[in-house]
Amino acid sequence: MEGTDRRTLPATSWAVLGLLSFGEELSGYDLKKWSDRSLGFFYWSPSFSQIYSELKRLEKAGYATSRMIAQETGTRDKRVYRVTDEGMAAVREWARSTPVDPPVLKHGPMLRLWLGHLLEPEQMREIVDGHREFAERMRRCAVADAEAAEERPAWAYPALTLKWAERYYASERDLATAMLADLARLESRTASGNPAAPAPGTGAQPG
Amino acid sequence: MEGTDRRTLPATSWAVLGLLSFGEELSGYDLKKWSDRSLGFFYWSPSFSQIYSELKRLEKAGYATSRMIAQETGTRDKRVYRVTDEGMAAVREWARSTPVDPPVLKHGPMLRLWLGHLLEPEQMREIVDGHREFAERMRRCAVADAEAAEERPAWAYPALTLKWAERYYASERDLATAMLADLARLESRTASGNPAAPAPGTGAQPG
Repeated sequence: MEGTDRRTLPATSWAVLGLLSFGEELSGYDLKKWSDRSLGFFYWSPSFSQIYSELKRLEKAGYATSRMIAQETGTRDKRVYRVTDEGMAAVREWARSTPVDPPVLKHGPMLRLWLGHLLEPEQMREIVDGHREFAERMRRCAVADAEAAEERPAWAYPALTLKWAERYYASERDLATAMLADLARLESRTASGNPAAPAPGTGAQPG
Repeated sequence: MEGTDRRTLPATSWAVLGLLSFGEELSGYDLKKWSDRSLGFFYWSPSFSQIYSELKRLEKAGYATSRMIAQETGTRDKRVYRVTDEGMAAVREWARSTPVDPPVLKHGPMLRLWLGHLLEPEQMREIVDGHREFAERMRRCAVADAEAAEERPAWAYPALTLKWAERYYASERDLATAMLADLARLESRTASGNPAAPAPGTGAQPG
């Protein structure tokens, strides 16, 4: 417990403890797989090193325990982690009593489009096209993972959020399609192809 | 320039330089207002102190300059910032040549719903309801800001991303409505109201 103030655990620690709160004994590899197939769609896709550093923190706080288990001959033993009763009480308390953070979005493609006056129309289309493909890929993964989650009663709520993710990425894809249409309309309004090219003498013209 | 490696400027610096790249001379207050009304919907709503620290970094790199301008009697002079030709070339180069980061989403409400097995149904509804209200509020702000941006030709691309934001938050609102329906369906399937309450003996039962 020394060195870990439980009240200040970051949301990422609670996320990893949340993965353990479904009650199974999981290896770092399992935790990575589980988070990629649920958390990753709407919150965080941790790296192995992030998972191990969170596990260390959780063990130190007394919220998780681990043990080595033997593997088949020829493969190394593996360490598996389990939530403790104290950890279970803590994550429940966190889920019930901590104010919910509003969503944080850092939308790289939109940041770039916002600076459309610095880009060529062709580049903008490529950015939006790439984003549309990304969204459709994510949607398809969410469909597959939602189906897998629905098979296990304990995962009813993860399945619900995966259903949400499926719709979210379908919407992201459709918003990209709508933006391509908006871009085409905007370009057709101007001969130059870039209606927002800064006027001369604003100190903002091309160098 | 010493102490600032231009190639490693964070995306937030480029975002502030991006605000200046529309060519106007802006105070910290203007930058805050402009970012809240565009960037804030899809990337970043910087605090005043973040804006000033980015401006400091941009001035040091030679990408922005500032001067004091006199205000009406009785109010303090204010410092206004402008992009330099070098800054304009740099932000154009960044926008055109840096790979676009995929969107990053940290969806607090979904993180909580994912842990529905630790919550009461009533709490889940409150979380989703609160998120629906947040999304509708954001949508309404985006509508107003898109209308304002459309009045200025130089803001054609910001207007485009605000149009996108309007649709994005409408979709967030509708996904919340759909989730309320999914939650109701899930609850009706079980007498206890929580279909995913961990089974006894998994080490995950209520403490």
